[in-house]
Amino acid sequence: MTAAADTYAPTDRTVPTRSRERASYDKALVHSILDEGYVCHLGFVRDGAPVVLPTLYGRIGESLYVHGSTGSRPLRATGDGVKAPGLPVCLTVTHVDGLVLARSAFHHSLNYRSVVVHGTAHQVTDPEELRTALDALVDHVVPGRSADSRPANAKELAATAVIRLDLDEVSAKVRTGGPNDDAEDLGLPYWSGVVPVRAVNGTPVPADDLDPAVALPDYLSAP
Amino acid sequence: MTAAADTYAPTDRTVPTRSRERASYDKALVHSILDEGYVCHLGFVRDGAPVVLPTLYGRIGESLYVHGSTGSRPLRATGDGVKAPGLPVCLTVTHVDGLVLARSAFHHSLNYRSVVVHGTAHQVTDPEELRTALDALVDHVVPGRSADSRPANAKELAATAVIRLDLDEVSAKVRTGGPNDDAEDLGLPYWSGVVPVRAVNGTPVPADDLDPAVALPDYLSAP
Repeated sequence: MTAAADTYAPTDRTVPTRSRERASYDKALVHSILDEGYVCHLGFVRDGAPVVLPTLYGRIGESLYVHGSTGSRPLRATGDGVKAPGLPVCLTVTHVDGLVLARSAFHHSLNYRSVVVHGTAHQVTDPEELRTALDALVDHVVPGRSADSRPANAKELAATAVIRLDLDEVSAKVRTGGPNDDAEDLGLPYWSGVVPVRAVNGTPVPADDLDPAVALPDYLSAP
Repeated sequence: MTAAADTYAPTDRTVPTRSRERASYDKALVHSILDEGYVCHLGFVRDGAPVVLPTLYGRIGESLYVHGSTGSRPLRATGDGVKAPGLPVCLTVTHVDGLVLARSAFHHSLNYRSVVVHGTAHQVTDPEELRTALDALVDHVVPGRSADSRPANAKELAATAVIRLDLDEVSAKVRTGGPNDDAEDLGLPYWSGVVPVRAVNGTPVPADDLDPAVALPDYLSAP
């Protein structure tokens, strides 16, 4: 594998105007950030104004799939992927890893990992790709789950639209570590450091109507 | 207080095309969702294409404040708030509360709370409003922290831009509860229910250069 294949090529849109040292184009890093998130924030333009909606997504290789009803606004705008030009979108996934408390108000920050994807989304029309994408969406929420649930039937497939956004114009941005206080502030009497933040899963709660004979699957049990 | 003052007036942009029963215009609910988040996703249009960036924010009453460097792209686009028309934005905050596992792949979902704000952002130019907004940004990360850190000096204030977005065209969307499986699927042998998800703060980690004599403040101690 060549070095070029391991990274996304930077573009005007993916080189930040500030904190450039936090930017990365490493594919493995981008994939890991994407795979850890539950929702993305999908931006598109409607009537000249921006719209940002949270939505489920999944990843297969270098493609992201975003799920929705066939009646939803962004999905209708993408057209059928063959005749339509597609919908320009920006898809962003962010994890907050810590609260950074500096001596100075100015240097307060967050530790975070984010991925921003620019591109054009197309509606998935191939039946086989649609089924694969729906599996990826379910497995993104809980790995292994698509094989342990009832697959979509014809009626459900007809009511579901999925759009694909290829990973091409992509960047990650990561902040880690402690506060960056100015030297002259180090003696000030304010506590400084980082409060770690993380998302944790609680104990699974069975549905009210679950047959008690159905055991909690291994993929939901604590490791 | 009248009923009207407790809610935002729905508009074409804030009435969803689907799952309308999940939408709310209740100000108290919107405020609670906004106040719990650490980052928002700010969408704007650049060269005709959407851009979605994660960023810190704070709230004072019915105004949101978003922080950035004076050199950052969205902030430059807002102009000075007096001569410029402002920047159309969409600001979204989302909390994931649970993974909803249904018997059918189709009914998999997330429990979540989100707020979407449409409007026009203006750069804050009044020095007093700027200071107040910066305090709100710091206190949004850790309530009470702005009073326990060094306030911004003149140089820092000059390097900081803050934009204001008033809460006017706003909606919340909330999904709670268990899976909504179809009646004919209830007997399928798949576990169904909800895996709760929440963000938790870990033990604060002091900065490497923190004077050991500086104690952990009460607002960071476990309750």
